[in-house]
Amino acid sequence: MTTVATSARERMLLAKDASRSIGLLDGATKEQLLHAIAARLEADTDDIVAANAEDLERGREQAIGDALLDRLRLDRPRVAALADAVRAVAELPDPVGRVLDERVLPNGLRLQKVAVPFGVVGTIYEARPNVTVDIAALALRSGNAVVLRGGTAAERTNAALVRSMRGALSELGCDPEAVQTVDEFGRDGARELMRARGIVDVLVPRGSAQLIETVVTESLVPVIETGAGVVHILVDASARADWARDIIVNAKAQRPSVCNAVETVLVHRDAAERVLPGVLAALAEAGVTVHGDESVVRMHPAAVPAGEEDWATEYLSLDLAVRVVDDLDDALEHIRRYSTHHTESIITEDPGHAERFLAEVDSAVVMVNASTRFTDGGEFGFGAEVGISTQKLHARGPMGLAELTSSKWLARGDGQIRA
Amino acid sequence: MTTVATSARERMLLAKDASRSIGLLDGATKEQLLHAIAARLEADTDDIVAANAEDLERGREQAIGDALLDRLRLDRPRVAALADAVRAVAELPDPVGRVLDERVLPNGLRLQKVAVPFGVVGTIYEARPNVTVDIAALALRSGNAVVLRGGTAAERTNAALVRSMRGALSELGCDPEAVQTVDEFGRDGARELMRARGIVDVLVPRGSAQLIETVVTESLVPVIETGAGVVHILVDASARADWARDIIVNAKAQRPSVCNAVETVLVHRDAAERVLPGVLAALAEAGVTVHGDESVVRMHPAAVPAGEEDWATEYLSLDLAVRVVDDLDDALEHIRRYSTHHTESIITEDPGHAERFLAEVDSAVVMVNASTRFTDGGEFGFGAEVGISTQKLHARGPMGLAELTSSKWLARGDGQIRA
Repeated sequence: MTTVATSARERMLLAKDASRSIGLLDGATKEQLLHAIAARLEADTDDIVAANAEDLERGREQAIGDALLDRLRLDRPRVAALADAVRAVAELPDPVGRVLDERVLPNGLRLQKVAVPFGVVGTIYEARPNVTVDIAALALRSGNAVVLRGGTAAERTNAALVRSMRGALSELGCDPEAVQTVDEFGRDGARELMRARGIVDVLVPRGSAQLIETVVTESLVPVIETGAGVVHILVDASARADWARDIIVNAKAQRPSVCNAVETVLVHRDAAERVLPGVLAALAEAGVTVHGDESVVRMHPAAVPAGEEDWATEYLSLDLAVRVVDDLDDALEHIRRYSTHHTESIITEDPGHAERFLAEVDSAVVMVNASTRFTDGGEFGFGAEVGISTQKLHARGPMGLAELTSSKWLARGDGQIRA
Repeated sequence: MTTVATSARERMLLAKDASRSIGLLDGATKEQLLHAIAARLEADTDDIVAANAEDLERGREQAIGDALLDRLRLDRPRVAALADAVRAVAELPDPVGRVLDERVLPNGLRLQKVAVPFGVVGTIYEARPNVTVDIAALALRSGNAVVLRGGTAAERTNAALVRSMRGALSELGCDPEAVQTVDEFGRDGARELMRARGIVDVLVPRGSAQLIETVVTESLVPVIETGAGVVHILVDASARADWARDIIVNAKAQRPSVCNAVETVLVHRDAAERVLPGVLAALAEAGVTVHGDESVVRMHPAAVPAGEEDWATEYLSLDLAVRVVDDLDDALEHIRRYSTHHTESIITEDPGHAERFLAEVDSAVVMVNASTRFTDGGEFGFGAEVGISTQKLHARGPMGLAELTSSKWLARGDGQIRA
């Protein structure tokens, strides 16, 4: 149980080594392992809460602010919720071993493409200790070892969580080295993790746009980008006014701090007078500050005049940019320019416009007549979410356990040679 | 038709723009487009051969060597073969629009995950002008625009090929900017291409291990690594002697210069006396030089003593490293250490050993009782091959047209909002 590794690289090599045995566990054993982790986290609640108190104390001394302190806090109910989340992941179907393709060559060689674990999943994230457990549970459930690099502010909490999870691995006779943290190596730990090509198989950054940008730019390990959401809703000329109102209020105000919340509403000129007043009134009632272009400000004097930067901003707050567009092409052009390719939705009664929007908008999720808040692994029925990928390679949109697997081809022959 | 772009970046932006209309073409139009390209290449044969003559002349002046000159040469039969290859790609099923997943949420929201083009595919390769046409055809068939950066030695040939393909696009009323070369910008062209994150969606390097390493290390654009093959065959204790002989000779000598050719044979100690003499005699007859460990050299005095570097070498020639191992674990350990994760095969009559090998070897393709030469898009029935991926993200093993697509989620609702 004692970690003797003295460098981040050594830790990662231990994880690589452990990934071999973890990758061969059957589904039932991995399920059992996650239940053991959940139980152990509950049993270790006092330790975890005590470690967290030290981090909180340091955070207060450093005046990191109430919002960060709240994210950092792990009290008893939150530890219990974490354990429950691990149990939920335990119950998901095993993503490993699925047969993805199958063919028999004319010479009788039997090919199977099967889902296999990546090996070692790395993650770099900020001061949310719940990510430590979430990602470790998802990685282990899909047969991977995991290397964690969390924010310095949560270092002691993360260490306690990792100790607890490693304890559960040992209890079950699994290799505890499958869960590693490189937190105590500071910036060097993050740097080594980004350079560990050949040891770490995939790196998932979770956090601010800046953190993600740094990882994307510096990492030699392949990255899955979970990006920001400058999310658009287009109110088409034919939009139903009630749907426009309900969908926009829901997409903005139900939970404004998340990446699938809408940030910009575009309104077709021909719908502006008919639909906008109702939308703006409902937004005002929900406490939303509208940042509008000239047409919007004329109709709604409470609106703040919007500048160029508003179209590119992910507010993550009760702020919303609103712009009147000339037509569908104008809207598509705006979206091409400012979208982060996360989610866009059109509200329309025109099937032709709906299909053009679905075909031409280049985003992970494109919707018709629905709230952008549905872009979510839980809502999509994946049972858990690793993140929402805004890149096109490997995974796009909400990522579940399947996205933490790779594949390999198995070929079974009886002496076939190539002519 | 005249290209007015004055920088590599401008070229790439034109490709990005063109990717929108190319991505919306239906399957029949893309098929027609590829037939038009094939016809145009044939019609432009004189131009292409003349441009190639200039490259060859310069190559001779610079004494680049016979092997490179041969790769560079595009005579009339080779142009005809290129056109035929484009026609073969034209006939492949459209990879775009396939429904990859489908679900209806409890609230009635209908989700579909569909295959979509990446957008812009970039490629950096060496002096093989056939890659120019191969990759462009594969990219266009899968609805992508393409940015090409070939070797300087083939610059004029590539320019003629690109001119010809752009001519075919224009003839059919498609945007010719969908095919771009950045060759004339030299090293800057390659550098800009590797930095074009957000413009180019995926970059596929094709060529030497050094070229691939450079691209993997420097590129900010996501890369699909098509790697080298230090490919192993393990002759297990129970191996059939005739299969061992036929498979090893086929895997080494049928075409030694390719990445799926075997480079190291491991022989279980208990099979050495029974199986090796026949294998070594057949290899000698095929003109293969064996680099053996001590046991092998004792049995086969013609063998060159192998050193550490032999185990890590991709010979790509009629050379083969041969080592006697103690048991399956010893073999797996050797493979873990030296494999490039391309293809490995075991020759065995022991089903338990076969399944352990399949499960534990971490390579793109793992075989039992078959020649490693089958790792090939054509052999796998993909109809065409973009390359053989040795990475785990997005694509692993032979890549066909499907691997040049991403996906997107379409959500069709009637007013759904999140509770």
